[in-house]
Formats: sequence, C-alpha cells, structure tokens
Amino acid sequence: MAGSTIGTLFKITTWGESHGAGVGVVIDGCPSGLPLDEDMIQQFLNRRRPGQTPFSTPRKEDDQVRILSGVFEGKTTGTPISLMVENTSARPRDYSQIASCYRPGHADYCFDRKYGFRDYRGGGRSSGRETIGRVAAGAVAVMILERMGISFTTFTKAIGPILLTEEEIDLSLIGKTSTGLPNASINAQAESFLKECMMEKDSAGGVVECRVAGLPVGLGEPVFDKLDACLAKAILSIGAVKAFELGEGTNAPRLKGSENNDPFRMVNGNIQKLTNHAGGTLGGMSDGSELILRAHIKPTSSIFSPQQTVTKDGEEVTIQIKGRHDPVIVPRAVVVVEAMTALTLLDLLMINMTARLDSIVDFYGR
Amino acid sequence: MAGSTIGTLFKITTWGESHGAGVGVVIDGCPSGLPLDEDMIQQFLNRRRPGQTPFSTPRKEDDQVRILSGVFEGKTTGTPISLMVENTSARPRDYSQIASCYRPGHADYCFDRKYGFRDYRGGGRSSGRETIGRVAAGAVAVMILERMGISFTTFTKAIGPILLTEEEIDLSLIGKTSTGLPNASINAQAESFLKECMMEKDSAGGVVECRVAGLPVGLGEPVFDKLDACLAKAILSIGAVKAFELGEGTNAPRLKGSENNDPFRMVNGNIQKLTNHAGGTLGGMSDGSELILRAHIKPTSSIFSPQQTVTKDGEEVTIQIKGRHDPVIVPRAVVVVEAMTALTLLDLLMINMTARLDSIVDFYGR
Amino acid sequence: MAGSTIGTLFKITTWGESHGAGVGVVIDGCPSGLPLDEDMIQQFLNRRRPGQTPFSTPRKEDDQVRILSGVFEGKTTGTPISLMVENTSARPRDYSQIASCYRPGHADYCFDRKYGFRDYRGGGRSSGRETIGRVAAGAVAVMILERMGISFTTFTKAIGPILLTEEEIDLSLIGKTSTGLPNASINAQAESFLKECMMEKDSAGGVVECRVAGLPVGLGEPVFDKLDACLAKAILSIGAVKAFELGEGTNAPRLKGSENNDPFRMVNGNIQKLTNHAGGTLGGMSDGSELILRAHIKPTSSIFSPQQTVTKDGEEVTIQIKGRHDPVIVPRAVVVVEAMTALTLLDLLMINMTARLDSIVDFYGR
Amino acid sequence: MAGSTIGTLFKITTWGESHGAGVGVVIDGCPSGLPLDEDMIQQFLNRRRPGQTPFSTPRKEDDQVRILSGVFEGKTTGTPISLMVENTSARPRDYSQIASCYRPGHADYCFDRKYGFRDYRGGGRSSGRETIGRVAAGAVAVMILERMGISFTTFTKAIGPILLTEEEIDLSLIGKTSTGLPNASINAQAESFLKECMMEKDSAGGVVECRVAGLPVGLGEPVFDKLDACLAKAILSIGAVKAFELGEGTNAPRLKGSENNDPFRMVNGNIQKLTNHAGGTLGGMSDGSELILRAHIKPTSSIFSPQQTVTKDGEEVTIQIKGRHDPVIVPRAVVVVEAMTALTLLDLLMINMTARLDSIVDFYGR
Repeated sequence: MAGSTIGTLFKITTWGESHGAGVGVVIDGCPSGLPLDEDMIQQFLNRRRPGQTPFSTPRKEDDQVRILSGVFEGKTTGTPISLMVENTSARPRDYSQIASCYRPGHADYCFDRKYGFRDYRGGGRSSGRETIGRVAAGAVAVMILERMGISFTTFTKAIGPILLTEEEIDLSLIGKTSTGLPNASINAQAESFLKECMMEKDSAGGVVECRVAGLPVGLGEPVFDKLDACLAKAILSIGAVKAFELGEGTNAPRLKGSENNDPFRMVNGNIQKLTNHAGGTLGGMSDGSELILRAHIKPTSSIFSPQQTVTKDGEEVTIQIKGRHDPVIVPRAVVVVEAMTALTLLDLLMINMTARLDSIVDFYGR
Repeated sequence: MAGSTIGTLFKITTWGESHGAGVGVVIDGCPSGLPLDEDMIQQFLNRRRPGQTPFSTPRKEDDQVRILSGVFEGKTTGTPISLMVENTSARPRDYSQIASCYRPGHADYCFDRKYGFRDYRGGGRSSGRETIGRVAAGAVAVMILERMGISFTTFTKAIGPILLTEEEIDLSLIGKTSTGLPNASINAQAESFLKECMMEKDSAGGVVECRVAGLPVGLGEPVFDKLDACLAKAILSIGAVKAFELGEGTNAPRLKGSENNDPFRMVNGNIQKLTNHAGGTLGGMSDGSELILRAHIKPTSSIFSPQQTVTKDGEEVTIQIKGRHDPVIVPRAVVVVEAMTALTLLDLLMINMTARLDSIVDFYGR
Repeated sequence: MAGSTIGTLFKITTWGESHGAGVGVVIDGCPSGLPLDEDMIQQFLNRRRPGQTPFSTPRKEDDQVRILSGVFEGKTTGTPISLMVENTSARPRDYSQIASCYRPGHADYCFDRKYGFRDYRGGGRSSGRETIGRVAAGAVAVMILERMGISFTTFTKAIGPILLTEEEIDLSLIGKTSTGLPNASINAQAESFLKECMMEKDSAGGVVECRVAGLPVGLGEPVFDKLDACLAKAILSIGAVKAFELGEGTNAPRLKGSENNDPFRMVNGNIQKLTNHAGGTLGGMSDGSELILRAHIKPTSSIFSPQQTVTKDGEEVTIQIKGRHDPVIVPRAVVVVEAMTALTLLDLLMINMTARLDSIVDFYGR
Repeated sequence: MAGSTIGTLFKITTWGESHGAGVGVVIDGCPSGLPLDEDMIQQFLNRRRPGQTPFSTPRKEDDQVRILSGVFEGKTTGTPISLMVENTSARPRDYSQIASCYRPGHADYCFDRKYGFRDYRGGGRSSGRETIGRVAAGAVAVMILERMGISFTTFTKAIGPILLTEEEIDLSLIGKTSTGLPNASINAQAESFLKECMMEKDSAGGVVECRVAGLPVGLGEPVFDKLDACLAKAILSIGAVKAFELGEGTNAPRLKGSENNDPFRMVNGNIQKLTNHAGGTLGGMSDGSELILRAHIKPTSSIFSPQQTVTKDGEEVTIQIKGRHDPVIVPRAVVVVEAMTALTLLDLLMINMTARLDSIVDFYGR
C-alpha cells in the first residue's frame, strides 16, 4: 500500500488509524515564507469536527493539531511540515463482532483479503479520521491560494432526495447551517429527512459542490494530468464518494453541442466565456471561468438496523452495528472536498510555472 | 507539460499531434513473455477508427500500427514497447480561421494562454487522434488481463437523451451497432436522433459504460490510490468526459444506507455480495463483484452552425467551423474507455502483488 | 522542496529538524504481516546514537522511537507506519553567530538563497538528526530482507588516510570498534589520528563499505532505474557523501577488459562469477554475487579552529564554531549507509516481482 | 521494467534496441517557445557517433534524427517531443553463440534470469545505441540551459592509466582530440596505450569529467533529491559507469576539515567561495561555484581474446567475441555524461522555481 502520498511538487503523505496513537500528515514541497501557526490550521479542522449538529456522531473529537516541523519564527521554511492530531477519544470497546464479521458497505472484507488481516478497531485506515490529515494540509493550500486571489465556495448541494437549485443558494449561509445546505428552508427539510432516517436506524447521502473563483488560465497538464483528471482522482480518493462531475457533468450528454458550448466574448476588455456549462475547464486546462465540481456521496455504511452478512469463516449471520456513527457524513465532508480541491489546484499551479521557456529564463534572469 | 505519462509499474507515455508525422505511445513496464504482433493491436485500433458509420467523420484514417521496439521472436521482452501510427490523411488546408479564433468548447484559448501559442492544425494534442496511443497500449493491457480471466463488456449506455436500461441490454449486440448501443430498437432511435442533429448542424453526447468481470479482491491502494480514484483519473483524462460514476454513482445519494449497502452472503461456498450498488469497490479496493463504471461525454464541440467567439486579438466574430468532424464521438470512445480502464487495472494488479510479506518471501523463495 | 520522499513501492518520507519538536518518517508501502515493535527499531537507531565513543558528540540523544501507526497486535498491517523520535536534548543557545554567518562547508548559504531565510538552529534539515528517519525506516527494510536470506556487512573502510585492506578485515569485529574499522590495530591507528585531529581543532572523513549477500539475480530496472543508479542516488542523498563506488569503482578504468571482466563458471551446479570486480551488478541488475559499494565521506564541516567567511550582509568575518560536533561522522554513518542500501534493495525487490508475465498470472491464479 | 523514464517536470522516456526498427526518446515537459530543428539535435548526436577515430567501432551509424512531434513552425509547443533514429546499419549475422552463452561483463545472464529470455542481437537494451535517446534529449536540455547562461565543459580526464592533471587541460582542445583528452601529448600517450590494447585484443576504460558554469544557487531538493543524489543517479544510469565523484570526491576523506572546507569571501561585491573542494554543492544544493563531477567508466566488456564462460544450459565453454566493438567507449561517452548532467540540471531548475511563496505569488500576479 504505497498509496498514501498525493501530489508532484506540493506533496502530502497521510498516516494514522482511528484507534492508534494519532493521525497526521507530512506536507513536502510547501514554499517558504507562508505565515503559519496551529490556530490557522485548527480553524479548518474545526469545520470537519463532529458533535456540532444532531446529525454527526456525538463522539467528542478535540482534534488539536500540532506542528512538529517545517515552521520557524512563524513562517514555513520550505522543509517538510509534519502535522499531528493525537487520538484522545478512543475508548476501550468490544470489537469482537466487527473483528470477525464483514460489515456491508465497509472495507473490512477487502482489507482482510488484501493484507491477510486488518486493524478492526474503528475502520482503521478507512475511518473518517483519516481525512484529518487531508484537511490540515488543505488548510495550508487554501491559505496559499488566497494570496493569489483564489477563493472557495463549498457547500452541501443535496441531502438524500432534498436538492438545492441554483436560485435557492443563499451565499450568506455558506458554512452556517446544520446540514451545510445554504438555504434556511431547504435546510429545515433536510433536517426533517435526517431525523426520519435516524428514527428508522438508517442513513443518508448527499452531494457537495465546490466552486473556485480567481484561477488563472492554463492549469492542468495535457493529456493525463488534465485539471479534470487530477481533480477527479483527488475527489474519488475520499471514502464514500461514488461520482464526480464538472460543470454540467452527467447532464452534458443530454445537451446538444449548440447548447453546451460556451461562447467567448469580450467583457471589460477581457476574453470571457458568456456561459459556463464546462465548469471551468477546456481541453483539460482551467479556462478562466469559475471551476465548478460536485462530489456524490453515498449514505453512511454504518446503520443501526440489522443487516445480513458473513463472518470471516464463511458463516452467515445478522449483525447490528453499535457505537457512534454519523447518520450522514455530507456536512462534515464539505471541508474535505474543499481541501482535496485546493491541494490539487496548488500542485498544478506550481507545475504550470514551467510551461513556457521565457518564464523560466525570466525567473533565473532576475 | 509533463502530463503525458500515466501508470506506476505499467507506465505509458503518449506523443503526437493530429497533423504532425504521427502519433504513438511508449509502454514501459510491460512484463516479458506476452505474445504480441501488430495485428493484435490493430484489431483494437480498428474499434476506434472513423468512417465506419454515418455518425463518424468521413475522414479516412488507416491507422496502421507499427511495433518499433520491445518485441522479439513474437514475444514482449520486458523492454519498452514503442508503437507508432503515421499520420497519412492530413491534407493541406486553410487553418487561418482556427489559428486566430478561439473555437467554443475547444482547448484553443487555454493552449494559447498556457504556452504562448499553439499548433492550430486539427486541435494539436487535444485531437481525438491522441487516443490512438491510449488504445494501442490498452490493447496490450487487455490481452494481459484476459490471461488472468478478466474480461470487459463496454458499450454505449446513452446517446443524447436516448437511454438504455439494464433490461434492454442485448449482450449479443455489444460492439455491433452503429452507435454502440447494444439494442436494435434503441439503436434505431439513437440513429434518428443523430440524423436530426446532423441536419441541424449540431452534435450530441452520450454515456459509455464499462463492466469488468473476474477481478481479484483487493486491487487499489488506500488512501489516495484507491481503485475508484485511479479509474476516475484515467477516465477524466479522456477529452470530452465531464463526469465519472461507479455503481449507483450519482444515484447513491438518493438511496438510504439500508438500500445502498450490499449484503454479503455465501454463494457456492464463496463470500459474495448479493447486490452490487457499489459497482465493485469497497474502501477503494475491488470487492470481487463486477466493476461497473460510466463516463459521461459532452456533445462534440465542433458544430457546423455559426457560433459567437473572439479572435486572439480580442475581436468579436462569428465562426462557422468547416472540415470533417464526428457529430457524436461516443461510439468511437467506447474502446478508449475500455483501454483506460484496462491500463489502470493492470497497473494496480501489479502493485498489489507486494501487499503481503508472505507473498514476497514466497516469490523469492522459489 | 518536494525531495523528502524516496522509493516507488516501498516509499519513505522523512521530516523534522534538529531543534523542532522531533524528527520522523512515514513508511508507506510496507507489506503486511511483519512482526514489528519499537525495540526492534531502537536497536538499529542505537547504532547511530552519539556519545558512545570519544569521537562522537558528547551530546546526549536518547532517540527513543515511537510507532504512531501501521502496527496492530505486533504486526504491520500494510498501512503507513509513522515513526517519531522527539527532540529532547535541544538546549537554549545563542545562535546569533550562525544566524548571520555562513559556515564554510555547510548548507547555510544555499538555504538562505533558495528559501529566503532558514531555521539556523543546529543546521535545520541538514542536521545529522535527519538521518534518524532513514535509519528507522531502514531497520524495517533490513528485517524484511533478512526473511529472504539477504544479509548486510557494513563497516568503516577508511578514516582519513588510514585504509583497511581486504585482508585486514576481521569479520568478528564488525560493529564493535570505536571507529567502525573491523581490525584492532588499524582501529588503534585511526584513534590516534582522530585524537590528533581533535587536538588540532580539526576534523576527519572516511569511507564506509556495505556488502550484501543473498540477493536474487535481476534486481534493478533498465535503463534509468538500474540497481547501480538507484543505489548511487540513495547514497549520495546522505549529507557529506562526495563519491560512490561499486566493486572496483574508481579503479575500474585502470584495468583492462581482460582483467575487469568476471568469468562465469559452474559452482556446485550453479552459474557463478569466479571473481567480482563488478561489485555485484551487470547491466544495471544484480548478478547473484555479493553487492559491494562504498560511500566516501568528507571531513566534518564543523571545526573548532577559526575560519574565514562572510555574513548574510556581505561582511567578511572570522568565525569560530562552538557547540557539540563529531570530529568524524563516519562511525555513525555506517548504519545510515546500510539503511539507504536496504531501502533501495527492498523497493527494487518489490518492483522486480512484475518482470515476467507468467509470474503475474501464477500469482493471481492461486 | 518500468525504468525507462527519468525526470519530474522535464521527463524523458527512451525506447529501442540496437537491432530493432530504431531507437528514440519522448521528451515530456519541454517548455514552449524553444527554437528547435533536427540539425540542432544532430550536432549533438554526431559527438557520440562511432567511426570517427581508430578507437571506435568501424560500424557506420548514420543516426539521422527525426522530430516526430512537439515542434510547430520551428518552435517547441509544450507538447511531447518524440525523436527517433532508425536502425539502418544492422546486418544479418549469426548470433547463435551470443544467444546461448553469457558474455562476461555483459547483461546477458541477468536479462535471461530476470525476464526468462532476451533479445540477444547486439545487447538489446544494454547496447550503446540506447544512449542515442539520452543524447538527443540532452541536446534539448543543453540548448535551454544555454539561454540561462549555463555552459558545459566536458572532456576525457583519463584513459586507462593515463591521467590528465588540472594543469594539463588545454581548453582549446575540448572535443577536438581522438580520445577526448584535451592535451596533445597526453592524447598521444593515450593513443599508444589504446593501440596496444587493440593489439592485445583487449580493451580500456577511463574517466569523464563534466564542469558546469553559470548555475544559480539553490538547485537540488533536500533531502533525497539533493543535486548530488540526482546527478549520481543520472550518471550511474549510464552503462559501464562504476563510480561517481563530486569535487574532491574519493580524495575528500583524506583531507581534514580545515583543508576541505571552502571559505566564503566577497568577490566583486558578491559572496563567493575562495576554493571549490566541494565541486559546486553544499547541503545538496548548488552553491554558485562551478559544478565538477566525474564518471568512472570500466573497460569495454566486449574483448576479442578468448574468455571463459558458461552457456544457458550450464555448460562451461570458451568464447571469442566477434563483430564490431569499441576498444574504449570513453571518448563517445563524453557527450552522454554531458547529456545526463544537463537533463538533471534542467529538471531541478524547473522544480526550484516553486521554492518560495513570493516567487509563486509574483508569477501569477503578472
């Protein structure tokens, strides 16, 4: 399993299980000179912290991040930044059922078959806590992107069957509702739906949308490292994501070329697209319009109603999962989607600096 | 632009533009001992060849592949396999319009901004001909996977608004209809729709589905190189793809956990999932059931009706694209989706061999 | 600086400075099933610990390693192994001289120019403490290689002008002398030389040799990832190493082909080379004979006699370095050379498993 | 064998055997805007062409390079540059002896063991012709580096026991003597020595030195991608190289710290080192002084005198190699060493552009 590293120049490596000593990330390739302290990262991490709404696990996770290296006198030095969050909330439990059974929708069976055995406490590496490292590193990426005028608007687009239309988005409510849906009445509908799910000992999924404004033109490397492709990988690497869309996404095949093409026009002296069906990319590169992507997240696999499954030894059994589990992970996944998007964009921004010979010559001519 | 290479152990690098000397691919890391000749690869390439139906460009592309290295006495040697297809059909043309204008839906504008200028003849690296290298390499991957009992069923799932339901799939028609839809009457509907598009000087998109049977459990590397993530990248690296789905995909968020979880049961003495909402992966690893993915393809950007755009110098103009263009690329994209899927799977199969210490010790103990 | 990761399948990422919270390493891609605990790694780390001889810094470094992830019930799980050693010995000091001056032979000047400023406390990332991560990861690699019958003999080959000939090697003294030279009288000579250096407020260099027995034939990937090339990179990535040799090394050019070629013969029914001028590789692959490499290490840059240099602001000054510094780092570098060699070999062993189609088919046919 | 690619941003992939259709290279990541035509590359390739002196194979290799992609209207476009040289000189021969025997000093045995069989015609991938791709790509790298004021002085430093001292270097003879030794009388001595070798049906090795002036400070990424480490890998990836040195190299261990440290001083208002024992790097980064490296090359393995070896089937035999072989490859290797050095430097120059946050912000602020 050498799959814990992502990125070419801005590279992150995450480690840790939910029930070990802690979880963390090493950021390698962070440019020097960024003001950074633990509070800045903590603000980001708090966005994924559970226990803030009735729809997330009552498990208390303090998730206090610690900077172990790479920062000196308040600034990044260019050396690897090691970030760690200790696991404090793990309490002794009886895992005998999970240890021998394969929970439907979980990675248990695959881990056992791939590695011969697994750390069955709390999902191991497939635990939601694995995303702490992503979010901590994403915080750093977002701070750097902000300095280039690049900004994020990330929110819940749907909870179960409750969808938010473009017109219903209330930008003032981004990040402020219990489900992440930025609309008071739609949020209330989603709350009712989620309460119903909880009563039924069931769970729900949803959709996260991430929009990025201020991107320069030309990010993404033809042909395999297209912006589209790198984003798709980053988003599908988040557990529970089952689909990825850019712009019109799955609706694009239903449009005709004349409907889907975005005409270019001059706006305030600049070349711009009049529409943005493409979602911000052309030919695998950013096109200067807003980047719009969506992650489709399956309902939480851990449900409290009885389920059919088998044990490691091939015995058919009925299990009933206990413990503390979110009935929906979508609200907490919003910041994870933003983090993965930011990490991808920053890496491609750095790579793109070498696209032209004259840029390189200019750089070293200074 | 160092984005022309994909894969870790089975690695391919494509090169070539539509109007240069040719297009090609170098496969590095192909295991030794595979019987290989040009005919085997050619059969695959023929599946993407235009001119076979009224819905693809009348441009004649012979696309005769040549093996330049890596094969000796009919077998791969383990050294890089260089494959090349010469560009024979390019005819002198007047590109002055494309050279100065940015075609809507095309990469023109982004290339100019990223690199300072571009090869404007036929789309350069964003040309559909770039996929020849992918398909040629994919042919090799498919042949290797076949030897492990892994097989592909890839077909058109939708053309514009014409959708194929699960029940309508006629396996005997895979690869045998003009649109790739494996159902005679649905295919006829799609033909009518496409003829209408052509009459309107417009274009259509569609959906390709790829199913893979016979995969071992455990392919994919947690956490960033999940099977899901690697496939998403491979598929989104294909030009014109705007969305990627696994299993229920964008439908998953509308299901509850109890509906979406696939129960495990014993079938003929083996652990199996009774349903396959997941589409063949759990926790980012293959779960032993069929892998099911879909690529959503936008309508062809080159349409013959007039479109608004701007020139390089910022003049607003109306362009009318000429030349030979497919009104729909979906039928020809089927084999490209299969190729990218096969390349991804083979690479992960090779990587997975080192997951367990005992496998490694056994291997070298022989 | 995205240079803190090495390896393809068995991949390590180190982090940490000498004066931060600690130093560490994340091992990604370690196969599952290896018995591992902190004591096993500690034994390796103790080999590089200072304060054991008069020729290493009197600085006390406890270097107690902690396993933060990747091990469950005493075995590796296949997930990332995070190892950390806290920095306990750092004491408040006056760094004002180092902060403004560029110490000759050190990275100070380059760090300042590359990153704009640097963490001047104790050398930052160029500190010898950075090797703790390498050695901890190397311990894991050595344990895995041992299970395949691969063993290491690593020792000091020279201290300053004191050279050890082949005949003088006393295998029973490997790892048991103050300088690492496995010969009692040569070691005594080296001790005298080092004492003289210390009296003169000067420092010494030396040579480390690493021999590896039991390697299978064929490790190394033609053409850029030759075994020779990967080893050279790994060894030259160790600070203070200025040259790398395999087998005859720099002596090879002085031999004629008839002298340097190793004839093949049958020995006990196996094909073997009668001599080993090559040092264990042919064509960039292991050839089944002993691997023999040498790392040439410059004299410690920190010397206590006065040196000419300049300040950041371009003022010419004389500095006299204070603090705790090894007069020779060679004895402590022995285990670092062994660790980097082991990491390289293990990665190539894993990659090599996919060289033949029949091996892959066999593996998945099981 | 996925080892045919090297580089991170400026990435090359070579392919081809001596007796297949041709050899070539794909350069991915070349910045746009470099004037490039076949003649420019050909000049470089001619430096490695055989048949120019009595000490290289009389085999005629025209080695006419063809640009297959990536150049438009005389300039690189940023897309992959595919370069190919057809194999024209291969003549039908009797390879039965080489096919069954393992030539001492060659890769034959390792290839057979690694891959199960090999292309025995002319050494396959271990042939000297493999370097054509390196040199062609290196030509492009050198042209780019020249635009930044970076220049190379590469020459033969030794042939067999004939060594060139620093004082004997005659810069006006660089690239102009039969052995590459830039000194008329030393060259004459080397000629005599080589004639003697040929008479004895034996072969010779030698040393190539490469010096690079004009490098900016700070190239190289701590800690594993040090400039030293990347160069060592690049140089050791050249067949027949057995040792690598930087600056004092293997002599450094014999110096004391006070002798080996290079003092900094102000020269014409700039910080400079007064001496250059280090060979141009400190802490794994370029230090602004001249880069000085040496590659030690073993004597050609193909000698015409009888040698003891075994057949594939384990029969002990005496072989006498026939055909056309260089008695010394050093003169032709000079340009290969320069090419690998240039490729490494350019890649690190590109990576280094992202070291500081302010550089990135400035770049995108434009």
